[in-house]
Amino acid sequence: MGMFSEILKAEPISREKLGRGVRNGSIVVVKNSERSIKPIAIGTGVKTKVNANVGTSPKNDKVDLELLKCFTAVEAGADTVMDLSVGRDIDKVRKRILREVKVPVGTVPLYQMFVGRNCADVTLDDMLDVVEKQARDGVDFMTLHCGITFDLVKKSRRRLIPITSRGGSLIAAWMLSNNCENPLYTGFDQLLEILKEYDVVLSLGDALRPGATKDASDECQLGELQNLGRLTKIARKKGVQVIIEGPGHVPLDQIEMNVRLEKEICGNAPFYVLGPLVTDLGVGHDHITGAIGGALAALYGADFLCYVTPSEHLGLPTVEDVRNGVIASKIAGHAADMVKLGTTKKDDEMSQARKNLDWKKMFSLALDKKIKDKYPDLENKHECTMCGKYCALKILEKYGK
Amino acid sequence: MGMFSEILKAEPISREKLGRGVRNGSIVVVKNSERSIKPIAIGTGVKTKVNANVGTSPKNDKVDLELLKCFTAVEAGADTVMDLSVGRDIDKVRKRILREVKVPVGTVPLYQMFVGRNCADVTLDDMLDVVEKQARDGVDFMTLHCGITFDLVKKSRRRLIPITSRGGSLIAAWMLSNNCENPLYTGFDQLLEILKEYDVVLSLGDALRPGATKDASDECQLGELQNLGRLTKIARKKGVQVIIEGPGHVPLDQIEMNVRLEKEICGNAPFYVLGPLVTDLGVGHDHITGAIGGALAALYGADFLCYVTPSEHLGLPTVEDVRNGVIASKIAGHAADMVKLGTTKKDDEMSQARKNLDWKKMFSLALDKKIKDKYPDLENKHECTMCGKYCALKILEKYGK
Repeated sequence: MGMFSEILKAEPISREKLGRGVRNGSIVVVKNSERSIKPIAIGTGVKTKVNANVGTSPKNDKVDLELLKCFTAVEAGADTVMDLSVGRDIDKVRKRILREVKVPVGTVPLYQMFVGRNCADVTLDDMLDVVEKQARDGVDFMTLHCGITFDLVKKSRRRLIPITSRGGSLIAAWMLSNNCENPLYTGFDQLLEILKEYDVVLSLGDALRPGATKDASDECQLGELQNLGRLTKIARKKGVQVIIEGPGHVPLDQIEMNVRLEKEICGNAPFYVLGPLVTDLGVGHDHITGAIGGALAALYGADFLCYVTPSEHLGLPTVEDVRNGVIASKIAGHAADMVKLGTTKKDDEMSQARKNLDWKKMFSLALDKKIKDKYPDLENKHECTMCGKYCALKILEKYGK
Repeated sequence: MGMFSEILKAEPISREKLGRGVRNGSIVVVKNSERSIKPIAIGTGVKTKVNANVGTSPKNDKVDLELLKCFTAVEAGADTVMDLSVGRDIDKVRKRILREVKVPVGTVPLYQMFVGRNCADVTLDDMLDVVEKQARDGVDFMTLHCGITFDLVKKSRRRLIPITSRGGSLIAAWMLSNNCENPLYTGFDQLLEILKEYDVVLSLGDALRPGATKDASDECQLGELQNLGRLTKIARKKGVQVIIEGPGHVPLDQIEMNVRLEKEICGNAPFYVLGPLVTDLGVGHDHITGAIGGALAALYGADFLCYVTPSEHLGLPTVEDVRNGVIASKIAGHAADMVKLGTTKKDDEMSQARKNLDWKKMFSLALDKKIKDKYPDLENKHECTMCGKYCALKILEKYGK
């Protein structure tokens, strides 16, 4: 299978294991049948992947800027991008990203279903039309909030922050307006037919992911996760690949449990976490808060990290925020992969370069390929300004022979 | 005891537990008897503390700049600073920091023992003179590399990076030059007398901390830790308070074990970790790599996090690097304290402010008090540029009544 050959070049996994993982759903292969990009694999036994969110908003509606963020993200190491546009021309942004960006692209079709429309008037057919249009355009994976049921929406009122998910709040608003069950839940089979036709990976959205560490692992979150477990089985039977979205805001000691629960309830479907953020106080530095949670989640089995940028909770990210967000998640994912997959070769080469005081080599091995631009003089030097001649390595070089 | 009252105001611990912790050595109270600052407590049951390193080097020898870094660090939330100067006038820098900075100050006296001198000529008496001078000046805690013995120096040659500790390399160079055991090990009793006289907390240095993730938890590191365990007992008998320095570069799955080992071997002495860095590839973003390791270490019981700045492995930090390094470590420490100590009140207030879309309140609760300057328009708004009118909270506000 040609798809597998591409993946095997990039991953420390055998063809047998990859095949078995794809068959049992613990690995998904991401590529819409209409797109000509390299497929990627997400799941158990392959490298932890990183997603970067981009997209316009009513107040920041510049398509070129979002394209630049895509290029920046991919250059910094993002494995996928998600177009979360809610600005004026959603079709245009998506089509341009799909054409110009050469990694798998995801969307949250709920945005286009509801943006500019009266929430209550949207029908299931309208919703399916958006999914079909986006699938036909080539979207490789879609986050669809199929597991948030009406009972859980009502329960969410007890939370500190009822719903922090934008897609989740839209579908909840629909349910509240129409006093009716989630159409993506009741119409799940129709949805699957479209996704199947275009080999779109279904990312089952966590509409009730906690928006506060206090709400983590509560009745609402776990209730939705149970629904996602059932939907996963149905989707797999129809031949649709599934990944599961996860939190969100989670205290340090609940991360392992959250990962293990997801794997248990959802039949080892790949777990796609947002952060998770291990405190709510990291405002302005949430790429760091998210890297802490992401590293731990990935260590315990999360497969796909959605980046968080320094501007999370504050506004749309700048291009620099995008870079920093991707690098933070790459550090988290790689730190986990060193343990899970034994991918330590570059770390050892870095250490050797450090011993040799060879900054040129260090820069070539760094996860951030641009960092050398910040230290322009260093590449040809044999000491740095930290210690100068009192460098531990130089001292030992002199006396340690 | 007056010292305790100050501490109890700042910590979620009872007077009884604090007293017991200090008596059994699981908590140290940091304040030189000659200084008039508020003492702080470091150890089991009190908040995780953060240290920021500053100090001149031969290539960056501006005292005012290092002072500015101290002020910046303390404003950003650093609980202590260490003056690691190896520039021209070490006495002058230290005296100014001790006079102008109102938190506990640490040093690594080995630097002043060796800077500008021929390594082999330095005697134990010279070394003790430096310790006494710095203690008399008011230094509150000192890192002394007493546990690196000559046999371990020889063994360290087998490592990928033999010694990354600057102090460690200096004392190793002395041993190699004189073909003689570590004088800080053989002369440990004399050292303790000085530290005891001024109530200086002894930070037993980890000269053989791994400088590469590959070298983590190896024979050298653990051999030194065994020595530190023995020295801890001797120091406690003499009435000197002890903390233990720890790694360094440690893969994610070895952090818990490292913390538990230290507590076991060193009689629950507070553990002071540098990072730890969970990969070697985070060059330029090692405050993030260190925050990942620091959060996990603190969760498992580390008590004191030495910050790592974005310029680690590249040069002396700028003032902005210092800020970012402190904030990263504060996030790590607080994320662990939420779990260890249940200090979640501010997180819940932050979540409530988020629900209310009250950015003024959010900024007041953020660990980084300066972050609001980056988003000057936000404080008086009721939505951010991320979602604008498609804010999940606003949608629910409208439909969720």
